[in-house]
Amino acid sequence: MQVRAAVAVGAGKPLEVTTVNLEGPRAFEVLVEVKATGICHTDEFTLSGADPEGLFPAILGHEGAGVVVEVGKGVTTLKPGDHVIPLYTPECRTCEYCLNPKTNLCQAIRSTQGQGLMPDGSSRFSTLDGDPILHYMGTSTFANYTVVPEIALAKINPDAPFDKVCYIGCGVTTGIGAVINTAKVEIGSRAIVFGLGGIGLNVIQGLRLAGADQIVGVDLNPAKKEMAERFGMTDFVNPSEVEEDLVPYLVNLTKGGADYTFDATGNVNVMRTALESAHKGWGESIIIGVAPAGAEIATRPFQLVTGRVWKGTAFGGARGRTDVPQIVDWYMDGKIEIDPMITHTMPLEDINKGFDLMHKGESIRSVVLY
Amino acid sequence: MQVRAAVAVGAGKPLEVTTVNLEGPRAFEVLVEVKATGICHTDEFTLSGADPEGLFPAILGHEGAGVVVEVGKGVTTLKPGDHVIPLYTPECRTCEYCLNPKTNLCQAIRSTQGQGLMPDGSSRFSTLDGDPILHYMGTSTFANYTVVPEIALAKINPDAPFDKVCYIGCGVTTGIGAVINTAKVEIGSRAIVFGLGGIGLNVIQGLRLAGADQIVGVDLNPAKKEMAERFGMTDFVNPSEVEEDLVPYLVNLTKGGADYTFDATGNVNVMRTALESAHKGWGESIIIGVAPAGAEIATRPFQLVTGRVWKGTAFGGARGRTDVPQIVDWYMDGKIEIDPMITHTMPLEDINKGFDLMHKGESIRSVVLY
Repeated sequence: MQVRAAVAVGAGKPLEVTTVNLEGPRAFEVLVEVKATGICHTDEFTLSGADPEGLFPAILGHEGAGVVVEVGKGVTTLKPGDHVIPLYTPECRTCEYCLNPKTNLCQAIRSTQGQGLMPDGSSRFSTLDGDPILHYMGTSTFANYTVVPEIALAKINPDAPFDKVCYIGCGVTTGIGAVINTAKVEIGSRAIVFGLGGIGLNVIQGLRLAGADQIVGVDLNPAKKEMAERFGMTDFVNPSEVEEDLVPYLVNLTKGGADYTFDATGNVNVMRTALESAHKGWGESIIIGVAPAGAEIATRPFQLVTGRVWKGTAFGGARGRTDVPQIVDWYMDGKIEIDPMITHTMPLEDINKGFDLMHKGESIRSVVLY
Repeated sequence: MQVRAAVAVGAGKPLEVTTVNLEGPRAFEVLVEVKATGICHTDEFTLSGADPEGLFPAILGHEGAGVVVEVGKGVTTLKPGDHVIPLYTPECRTCEYCLNPKTNLCQAIRSTQGQGLMPDGSSRFSTLDGDPILHYMGTSTFANYTVVPEIALAKINPDAPFDKVCYIGCGVTTGIGAVINTAKVEIGSRAIVFGLGGIGLNVIQGLRLAGADQIVGVDLNPAKKEMAERFGMTDFVNPSEVEEDLVPYLVNLTKGGADYTFDATGNVNVMRTALESAHKGWGESIIIGVAPAGAEIATRPFQLVTGRVWKGTAFGGARGRTDVPQIVDWYMDGKIEIDPMITHTMPLEDINKGFDLMHKGESIRSVVLY
């Protein structure tokens, strides 16, 4: 079939919105009509050429929501008409990783996914001339139809609005999951969130949901304050306005250091500050942000020997088929908010404007509506 | 009273064995007759001048065992005749840290202890001319009598031999505790231990006690192999004999990376290797070793984002008054071994020989018998 897609033709080049071929689903695959997709920094990271594993030409996009159109042979858990969110971290429920309660990093299709291919080693997308176009993160939601492995689709509440819950496909789950699954924040905790963009705001609402007493937000941009407060931030710190060193300032503000700190910036220096602002004896620091290729974190080992713990999280530690439907329900029940974070919507034809808004820092999240 | 002590008179100088004055215990303090003390690398770290917080003149020693001689006003939990192990990490059971189950770093007397003083801000030791001599780590076991705060004494089984269980005052508890309290190793785990000195051997026997399936020991010195096997090591790796990079070699040896890795070297490059040899998704790496002043650990944050956890441990995460008597009982019950690790004993007069043996790598542990 012919579908509309925004094709990433090369590093640093704008996406080209065009018509491409999409082959139907093979065994254990599902054809999804994408109804909405967010534009995430990870798409930008790959498009810019900064991602050393980035491949072109490819159809990016990993934060979508849509409807099942057709299922391939052997698919048993989904049927046409089901509403779904594609998962860049699948959940096969049978691999060594899925069976270990400490991780969400299902490895069932990792190697082909990393090569931009479906699990059988081929691509479903091609140009009208027949040249293959690669998938991206197993999801390729920058197309109005896409093919996704069955194990990489979460079946969600059919009443949920696509233009909002698509954000649960990455940002919402990453932020809230970092709090709930990775840090396992307890009621009454003190926390610091570095970076009040789309991920940071979701960390903040995750902390509110978990019952944190103090939620400190740190950002150089004072314009972030109002929205962060809306999501539960109790204290705002602009490092450019702090006259002493930032670590002792934050340690003092949190009465000895935070129980949990979260880096949502991807800046390795901020990651260090986050670790060192955690409470001696028990503070945990969670890295969420993606750092530039080759960048390294560092600290004195004394920071760890005196009880701080350094962790990271991918997709918020969520097992997508299990946890994503739950987060959709939380949204439908009003336990979490998404609407204010969707600051811009646009048709696929204008997708490059969404990237421009991200570059300018004007959007929290832009969503493409098909 | 006049007591015999090995006084550290300055950085890099040999200890001077001499007679000094010891004042009796004040309120909440206890006079202990030290019967035996181990010589630990931390004593050497301070004596060498490498410890930026080292103070002189002081009476070092923090790995002792002895008998209560006299108790000060207000002491309720100990009486003359009790057998005790002094604790450089006290356990007051009332401070914010003692009441938090996530840490053992009791802060009740930390600031005076760090200054080489008893909790009231003064020293009990002085020269025969009346000049004060500092305490060290709150224990000062390089004297045949010492004064220790009540909260820094573990009451132990009176049948336990001083010349063996003194080692529980630091090395044994640090190694076994890192496994049991900090890592919380599960039955069937795979583990890697870097550095097969006194701490590393105790990590190994802690792993055996915890039911680990694979216990890999890594050391540049092949002479360490035999003793480590005796304590439970299943695989020995000499990095100088590994032709490929050490991390992939160890990952392969442990079928994807170890569930738990332990650094018992204090070398920050080894700490990185230890982290990166941990299993993707859930591997935890525990820093035990003390690094040189100013040295920093580093890695790519991707290592943490893909599920590895970086932790440290001090005194094996043990709460001394509670856990040390338990470890003494394990020794008395034959659950753990200590005797083969006590490779040398000597009178106080020969204490500098103990340091020489440590420098030459000829001893696992030297113990001074009073």
